[in-house]
Amino acid sequence: MKVVVNVFLKAGVLDSQGKAVHHALKSIHFENVSDVRVGKQIVLKLNESDEKKAMEDVTRMCEDLLANTVIEDYTIEIVK
Amino acid sequence: MKVVVNVFLKAGVLDSQGKAVHHALKSIHFENVSDVRVGKQIVLKLNESDEKKAMEDVTRMCEDLLANTVIEDYTIEIVK
Repeated sequence: MKVVVNVFLKAGVLDSQGKAVHHALKSIHFENVSDVRVGKQIVLKLNESDEKKAMEDVTRMCEDLLANTVIEDYTIEIVK
Repeated sequence: MKVVVNVFLKAGVLDSQGKAVHHALKSIHFENVSDVRVGKQIVLKLNESDEKKAMEDVTRMCEDLLANTVIEDYTIEIVK
């Protein structure tokens, strides 16, 4: 089973990486960009066929390791 | 308009970040993970209403800045 986790900074947390990308895009003349946020996408392949169990496992992975839940949010999508 | 860009290493390119996450997950007893790949997700807000123009602009942004097309692939999704 393939599971996609997207981890990104919570709204209100300064996204310095996003600011840097935004600044760089302006410097190469992309003027129509109003905001940029940069996050992580983690693609997991699991030896698991039960979607409910997979969702529980990946939620625990996010809480324990993949996301810093103080400043980051995450989404989990089972892709099969 | 909101556009989501996912940038990830091409298949066959060593994903050291993915390997490190995989190793860390094993060390906290997640044994059912067979592979981990880590990429970037970039969320762009554009002052643009024409989807075709937005797609062209973001493709050029990827080619010029957001992705290292030698070792990375990217997908572009217009989310509205």
